[in-house]
Amino acid sequence: MLTDSNIQNIINQKIEAISYPVVPANLYEPIRYALSLGGKRLRSTLTLMACNLFSDEIDIAIEPALGIEIFHNFTLLHDDIMDNADKRRCQPTVHRKWNENVAILSGDTMQIQAYQHLAQVPALFLPQVLKCFSKTAVEVCEGQQLDMDFEKRVEVTQEDYLEMIRLKTAVLLAASLQIGALLGGATEKEAQLLYEFGSSLGLAFQLQDDLLDVYGDPKTFGKNIGGDIVSNKKTFLLILAMNMATGKIKENLIHWMTTVPQNPGDKIRAVTEIYNTLEIKLLCEHQIATFHADALGFLESVSFPYSRKKILIDYVSSMMKRQT
Amino acid sequence: MLTDSNIQNIINQKIEAISYPVVPANLYEPIRYALSLGGKRLRSTLTLMACNLFSDEIDIAIEPALGIEIFHNFTLLHDDIMDNADKRRCQPTVHRKWNENVAILSGDTMQIQAYQHLAQVPALFLPQVLKCFSKTAVEVCEGQQLDMDFEKRVEVTQEDYLEMIRLKTAVLLAASLQIGALLGGATEKEAQLLYEFGSSLGLAFQLQDDLLDVYGDPKTFGKNIGGDIVSNKKTFLLILAMNMATGKIKENLIHWMTTVPQNPGDKIRAVTEIYNTLEIKLLCEHQIATFHADALGFLESVSFPYSRKKILIDYVSSMMKRQT
Repeated sequence: MLTDSNIQNIINQKIEAISYPVVPANLYEPIRYALSLGGKRLRSTLTLMACNLFSDEIDIAIEPALGIEIFHNFTLLHDDIMDNADKRRCQPTVHRKWNENVAILSGDTMQIQAYQHLAQVPALFLPQVLKCFSKTAVEVCEGQQLDMDFEKRVEVTQEDYLEMIRLKTAVLLAASLQIGALLGGATEKEAQLLYEFGSSLGLAFQLQDDLLDVYGDPKTFGKNIGGDIVSNKKTFLLILAMNMATGKIKENLIHWMTTVPQNPGDKIRAVTEIYNTLEIKLLCEHQIATFHADALGFLESVSFPYSRKKILIDYVSSMMKRQT
Repeated sequence: MLTDSNIQNIINQKIEAISYPVVPANLYEPIRYALSLGGKRLRSTLTLMACNLFSDEIDIAIEPALGIEIFHNFTLLHDDIMDNADKRRCQPTVHRKWNENVAILSGDTMQIQAYQHLAQVPALFLPQVLKCFSKTAVEVCEGQQLDMDFEKRVEVTQEDYLEMIRLKTAVLLAASLQIGALLGGATEKEAQLLYEFGSSLGLAFQLQDDLLDVYGDPKTFGKNIGGDIVSNKKTFLLILAMNMATGKIKENLIHWMTTVPQNPGDKIRAVTEIYNTLEIKLLCEHQIATFHADALGFLESVSFPYSRKKILIDYVSSMMKRQT
């Protein structure tokens, strides 16, 4: 069986080997750039690992894995426009390096290219793979819309938030695994278990992201610590804190949420202090561990010996411990 | 055989019958709105007519026809953002009625929905239909990028321009017909003839659009006459005029192109006068007639009696005579 680094090498080589027309340069250069920024290639790695779980022959899943990776990078590209983000993986975003129109159109093209890669699966699998992928792709858009809606909403419950991140993040991980499993020869039921495994995993990963924004190691974390606090982003931590705080602490939290401080560091320190008082870190870690355990439970139900699943389990655990 | 109005009724009913989730409203309301603005439903009509040319059973082509129509409306939605357009079919554009982020994301979702409809074709046809559609969809993006590039380019030749409109407009009409023909049971060669028919037709239609902007009847033309002149859009008329003008006339044309007049009407009148002097209308009409004749030539090579093709030929002729 292939390790995660074997698989990532395959994916990166395939991505580098994609050839683009020269003209129009303003369409194809941004696509090449967006895909060259790297990243963990998490989704495509999961597709190939899921395939490899059921079959020693993973070639069948390479093209759809690329399709999913390109789709994911398309969503980042368009999300960066919507979030008005300057940087992606420490480099200028496409709409900053070129302009917004270029970013819209090259993203649109990437979405089509994603389908072109997905359409390379054997005809036998095509209707099912497309159905799963398109349903998921629409859900990712729904998740992004909910995320934007939540910015303007006063109250967001824990349930609302989990449903939003399920759509925005978890379902694509889930579908990546499901599609890989199907192509590896899994039964419908087994593929569905891989889907559920990925869905729980996606929730855990997103909460991990929320946690790292506050408690990450500044030396290894790719972004500035406390960015979500400064922008009042309704993360799982903030929603938990708003639910749990009472009296003076709640007043204090609302004060900081409605204040644009002269020094953002003051706000980050003050809100982190509130989180510490309320033991939000512990609560969040507990929730992450629960989702991680849920995920492993689904994988356990797939009737393979542990040895066959070990690579996937270890890879996922390493992702849970990541600091970036 | 079904007439164009039979077919348009089918399409409009199917579009109205599409059901959307209620939430997130900011994702689905704009999609419903964009598709409710109407339009000639030209592409989906051509898909069904092409299918009907080869088969009396057109149900097989309805879903892909809808997919193509939704894709076309997605391109309009995103083009309107890029062109900063206020109105589409006399109504506010989605990015004006909501905002730019909503327009980006609902457009992205429409593109996926287009694939969901296309994926409904029988599995036997799916790989071929997807391949044709995705290739075309990428070309449409290339055409849009070239169109934007041309705005900033000093020299655009007639060949450059025709290649741009081939990509931006003609290939989707061509693919609409090709996909309909394939689903109707056409041979590869026959479907290719329908593609060429559509491609020539698309060029004719686009030049017709350029011509109507200047010479359309203000009473029936949906937009303001002379809009392209005011914005210095490099239309076929302007490119012809720049090629043909010499001496004083060329100086005069360049003067107006580099001037933002106090009264746009002055510019429209002056440039139209130059076009009249150079007989641009006649030249453009000649080019349109040539493309129209080319199109009919391709259709003639399809070995069906004229009676079978008459509906399609008449429909296309009526489109050539349109004033909006």
